[in-house]
Amino acid sequence: MTYEPKPEHRFSFGLWTVGHPGFDPFGDPVREVLSPVQLVELLAEVGAWGVNLHDNDLVPIDASAHERDQIVSDFRKALDATGIVVPMATTNLFRDPIFRDGAFTANDPRVRAFAIRKTMRAIDLGVELGATTYVFWGGREGVETDSSKDPLRALGWYADAMNFALESKPNEPRADIYLSTTGAMLAFIETLEHSEMVGVNPEVAHEHMAGLNFTHHVAQAWSMGKLFHIDLNDQTPGRFDQDLRFGSANPKAAFFLVKFLEDVGYPGSKHFDAHAYRTSDYEDVKAFARGCMRTYLILKEKAERWNADPQIQELVARITHDDGSMAPYLGPYSAERAAALHELELDRRAIGARGQPYEELDQLTIDLLLGAR
Amino acid sequence: MTYEPKPEHRFSFGLWTVGHPGFDPFGDPVREVLSPVQLVELLAEVGAWGVNLHDNDLVPIDASAHERDQIVSDFRKALDATGIVVPMATTNLFRDPIFRDGAFTANDPRVRAFAIRKTMRAIDLGVELGATTYVFWGGREGVETDSSKDPLRALGWYADAMNFALESKPNEPRADIYLSTTGAMLAFIETLEHSEMVGVNPEVAHEHMAGLNFTHHVAQAWSMGKLFHIDLNDQTPGRFDQDLRFGSANPKAAFFLVKFLEDVGYPGSKHFDAHAYRTSDYEDVKAFARGCMRTYLILKEKAERWNADPQIQELVARITHDDGSMAPYLGPYSAERAAALHELELDRRAIGARGQPYEELDQLTIDLLLGAR
Amino acid sequence: MTYEPKPEHRFSFGLWTVGHPGFDPFGDPVREVLSPVQLVELLAEVGAWGVNLHDNDLVPIDASAHERDQIVSDFRKALDATGIVVPMATTNLFRDPIFRDGAFTANDPRVRAFAIRKTMRAIDLGVELGATTYVFWGGREGVETDSSKDPLRALGWYADAMNFALESKPNEPRADIYLSTTGAMLAFIETLEHSEMVGVNPEVAHEHMAGLNFTHHVAQAWSMGKLFHIDLNDQTPGRFDQDLRFGSANPKAAFFLVKFLEDVGYPGSKHFDAHAYRTSDYEDVKAFARGCMRTYLILKEKAERWNADPQIQELVARITHDDGSMAPYLGPYSAERAAALHELELDRRAIGARGQPYEELDQLTIDLLLGAR
Amino acid sequence: MTYEPKPEHRFSFGLWTVGHPGFDPFGDPVREVLSPVQLVELLAEVGAWGVNLHDNDLVPIDASAHERDQIVSDFRKALDATGIVVPMATTNLFRDPIFRDGAFTANDPRVRAFAIRKTMRAIDLGVELGATTYVFWGGREGVETDSSKDPLRALGWYADAMNFALESKPNEPRADIYLSTTGAMLAFIETLEHSEMVGVNPEVAHEHMAGLNFTHHVAQAWSMGKLFHIDLNDQTPGRFDQDLRFGSANPKAAFFLVKFLEDVGYPGSKHFDAHAYRTSDYEDVKAFARGCMRTYLILKEKAERWNADPQIQELVARITHDDGSMAPYLGPYSAERAAALHELELDRRAIGARGQPYEELDQLTIDLLLGAR
Repeated sequence: MTYEPKPEHRFSFGLWTVGHPGFDPFGDPVREVLSPVQLVELLAEVGAWGVNLHDNDLVPIDASAHERDQIVSDFRKALDATGIVVPMATTNLFRDPIFRDGAFTANDPRVRAFAIRKTMRAIDLGVELGATTYVFWGGREGVETDSSKDPLRALGWYADAMNFALESKPNEPRADIYLSTTGAMLAFIETLEHSEMVGVNPEVAHEHMAGLNFTHHVAQAWSMGKLFHIDLNDQTPGRFDQDLRFGSANPKAAFFLVKFLEDVGYPGSKHFDAHAYRTSDYEDVKAFARGCMRTYLILKEKAERWNADPQIQELVARITHDDGSMAPYLGPYSAERAAALHELELDRRAIGARGQPYEELDQLTIDLLLGAR
Repeated sequence: MTYEPKPEHRFSFGLWTVGHPGFDPFGDPVREVLSPVQLVELLAEVGAWGVNLHDNDLVPIDASAHERDQIVSDFRKALDATGIVVPMATTNLFRDPIFRDGAFTANDPRVRAFAIRKTMRAIDLGVELGATTYVFWGGREGVETDSSKDPLRALGWYADAMNFALESKPNEPRADIYLSTTGAMLAFIETLEHSEMVGVNPEVAHEHMAGLNFTHHVAQAWSMGKLFHIDLNDQTPGRFDQDLRFGSANPKAAFFLVKFLEDVGYPGSKHFDAHAYRTSDYEDVKAFARGCMRTYLILKEKAERWNADPQIQELVARITHDDGSMAPYLGPYSAERAAALHELELDRRAIGARGQPYEELDQLTIDLLLGAR
Repeated sequence: MTYEPKPEHRFSFGLWTVGHPGFDPFGDPVREVLSPVQLVELLAEVGAWGVNLHDNDLVPIDASAHERDQIVSDFRKALDATGIVVPMATTNLFRDPIFRDGAFTANDPRVRAFAIRKTMRAIDLGVELGATTYVFWGGREGVETDSSKDPLRALGWYADAMNFALESKPNEPRADIYLSTTGAMLAFIETLEHSEMVGVNPEVAHEHMAGLNFTHHVAQAWSMGKLFHIDLNDQTPGRFDQDLRFGSANPKAAFFLVKFLEDVGYPGSKHFDAHAYRTSDYEDVKAFARGCMRTYLILKEKAERWNADPQIQELVARITHDDGSMAPYLGPYSAERAAALHELELDRRAIGARGQPYEELDQLTIDLLLGAR
Repeated sequence: MTYEPKPEHRFSFGLWTVGHPGFDPFGDPVREVLSPVQLVELLAEVGAWGVNLHDNDLVPIDASAHERDQIVSDFRKALDATGIVVPMATTNLFRDPIFRDGAFTANDPRVRAFAIRKTMRAIDLGVELGATTYVFWGGREGVETDSSKDPLRALGWYADAMNFALESKPNEPRADIYLSTTGAMLAFIETLEHSEMVGVNPEVAHEHMAGLNFTHHVAQAWSMGKLFHIDLNDQTPGRFDQDLRFGSANPKAAFFLVKFLEDVGYPGSKHFDAHAYRTSDYEDVKAFARGCMRTYLILKEKAERWNADPQIQELVARITHDDGSMAPYLGPYSAERAAALHELELDRRAIGARGQPYEELDQLTIDLLLGAR
């Protein structure tokens, strides 16, 4: 098994991931800044399929129209030369001081107008580069103090502005960010005028920050037909946004995620929204990028083996055994079912005494994960 | 100001709250068990308006039909004697061994059938006692290991079973509980056949466990018309389920919640889903129950003063100032607005340089909260 | 590789671990209670070497002197018959109502006296059974409200009572437990009269609850000669006390722990303070117990391979390279070193530009962990 | 009550607090950078007593000797003109790329030498400015992956380098920082050669990040004579490092801290290690700084009232009641005490049935805190 990344794996990275120069709140940049063209070349070297971008990852916020066109033209040439595609684009609505109080939910209406206009232009840029998915991350759509903003009005402004894929995050850089989880986003989408056009872009780190099971949230999004994109990385619960290499903080959680995506046949990009440690040089940045994809492929193979393992599958069959005798009573509501159910005799104590071999099954999973079966 | 609870405040407690005998995973009960009738009398003494219950808080799971009728009749007499009402009822789907792998999402179909039947009967009981809201909390609807259950199938079973008010919680007693946040519940409701009949019952402690801003989640539920009920208590983030006295862990967070509920005119019960410390005797349980209501009323008065405070309101006006010049560009999408917006000139640097006095406003809020203004 | 547990591995379990009947705050027991003799037989069957106990795991708190002697005699016979040893004993100072406000730090002096007396007797019991390590866990030594207890006085009472191995935990069942981390315990020990007799018994779950790196705390205890015992289990950060099967929540963190213990040659018991899921029957409890030991042994073998892997060791050598040129300037303080250091020329920019291949090394570790190298 | 800050309150701020220009990992600076002299003037305007500094807050890392002397001279003039003092100084060992893998625990020995030299020079600067306390914060002394560093060797290097006040933090900017809590620091200090010269500088936010009770840690440090300095700010548990205005996240926790510091007569600086929201302009930065001190003074007055409140004190007396009958059995170990204790008769059930009015006391505390008594 070489775990070689191939185009059909649809592995993508953001310009901001492998291009992150290693600054943080307590530290200055440690790596030289590479140009978008250099970053495309780096991604080609490590075997990625796609590159994603915020508008200002490619075109500086102050660029003239002429500069913009030159940058985009150079970038496109690099894409053509390497075969790298742009599956997704997004807008930076958090870095510039104008967004210090939010973009779509800023109290100042001029900021809201600016944010919408910037987003429209960024969509144009994405379309020009071939992106078919557009992501919105409201990194500043929150508060430090609830005295400063009315959450109902903020939600209304948010809804006015939305018609894209949505990403949620509970906090950082704001103390509390609105629509803090994938679930909140999914609910919000249902209130939008063109909800059919809008889905979610869940990120491992963002759900893990709140100590939540990411795979369960992805399952909910998938069951609603709303898994438009996904951000793969890793994160220890209850911490600052770490954006670690995929699978590097908790390989078991990563396994169940990969297994889910492969089992349902998720067709979209596997996008790695992570960055290398600040201790890395660019050789180690490549090790980071290769590691993201390699770990995904290792876990993909393990998922296949899990599905084919006779002892595991015997346990799964036992656990999910259904002799059909309950079929008349279960399923969507009907008056007949309800009436039948009222009469049903069940031996509560006998059923309650029945154990399930979940420790055994989980240990087999650990064995498989660790290569010990 | 006496902060005296009155019926119009609609303060309610569960039988399981003031009746909690003080066990926990590491400790045996420390208080004698009181009967439902004694608990109704206790609630009357401290000035509560309503009492809520799980089916088995009132009727033991093993009671005969005759025993059940006697218990319900005694209970109704106590209600009549005290004027206490039953605004909400719910089903215990977590305590009995039969639910060790879940109720509506148990792998065993007999358990799922039993759970639905138990819920139907509990609804009958609630209706008999006058309850107008029915709550479902899926305390066992989760997993310890994702190897044990398919999350997509579990969500399907869940949806089949649902037509009630829903409460979410991220973990405990299961390692991961499905539909872990209020947002996930709101999204899930949109997938139900009779979604118009189903709302949420958010609980302070459950969102705080995941470190989330509870008021923001309540605001989202309210904006969707789904705030059917509310569980008031308190909790420090990232811990076991503490169910502390309302406002006792973080009075500032409680203030913004009370302010929200009062500002929008939330008409439902203010239900306290908390219990006294294990160190308490029943005199202290009463102090606990009185304290829940008293703190709510203190914070309600502070919310009114916040709304009437000229200096605070001057800041709010400044913060939310809108001279109307952006009106042509903002609001729901239209082609004209989009075109106009493309042409709009905005001075990004000048707007970005503008600060907002949020520290000042938050400090005034702290002053008001601490009685220092 | 069979990963068969053997006596030299010194694997031990508490009576309370495999004997846990599956209750939790929301659920009644689901498994029948086994006697201490039956539990010793179960541990022998799965291959454990030792069994640990709280006084009341073996002898009920209300047993007469005669009953006690009979129970201890039966238990000793089971030990002799199976070869199982009792390496550690401890006192239950948390379950009985008398400890509702703490044991050594209860406000009531009668409780403090009772707790010390109970501990002395439990030590006698442990000695009688051959235990060489005595553990104290102050599960109730804390507060729900800081208004109730003076922390300085509580620490004084605590110090008066202490001469045993100490275990720390941040919260649950109290809102805040004194001496909440292994570090706090280590510092506290230095203030005791016979500090040389007292060490720590760190537990994976307790440090993980607070989101801390357990291995770092174990390293600190080891470096101070204070690692008297260890509790192996697993836990997701920021949650209730889960006591999961060793290595089942985060196998990577477990790997670094096992590697540390094996590298330094930790000679004590590898004690598993965990319990099976509530969904388990006793067959699955055995799978749980076997899984704890098996995962330890798998990780032990991986640690050996990590130490022998040429590519990994080449990276380690590169990372820790020291050409000796800094030796005159480093090491414990001396006036000469300080003077020399003042004159030393170093190229800050060149050194800062040097990256370290930590992503590469971590990915090789993941590869090894997943059996992909 | 005007809550006016005065020199005897010993309120101090770091240059880096009121001078923070509002960048974060996702955002560029939003406020112009003020010079050290301007910041001293700002602190004088809001009524602070002291100013603390990292070496590079005052003197850029690249400054020549001549530039350094000019900057220090200008700064001293501003101190003299305003009466502001420099009670504490510290070294920036985290911002420059040379520290990307740590300072005292970097794998590269040149970095360790550079860090010690930089610290010696920074101490000289602090002494020159009159600082009597020197603080060390090891912001980079940690790892992203435990594969990269041996924790035992790192602790050894750390001990070699240390003779200063120590500050702990669990994570950010490193995934795991060594000596992550105040307790771990206190234990570590006991291993140093000149441990009598070294104490701790606990910070509210750093213990709150890990969900720990900060007051308990301060009490432990005080009880060991090790509370050399303190960093006051605020933080929600389980999040990125927020450095919020003192008392603004949880005023109740802040109350118990202030009460403790005032009750024991902590004589040192009350240092505010926080910064204003990114939404603030410099007028709001002043509101932030004034608010830190004002909230402290409000809570100080409340602590005095708590101590003088007859109803509260009656409860405290009841809770801590001791009739002296246990005195022969309690206190430090002696053979007589142990023997007497063995014979003591205590009624376990009666004592266990006794409740404590902690809910009542906590509610009175909340009433007092909210100005409702």
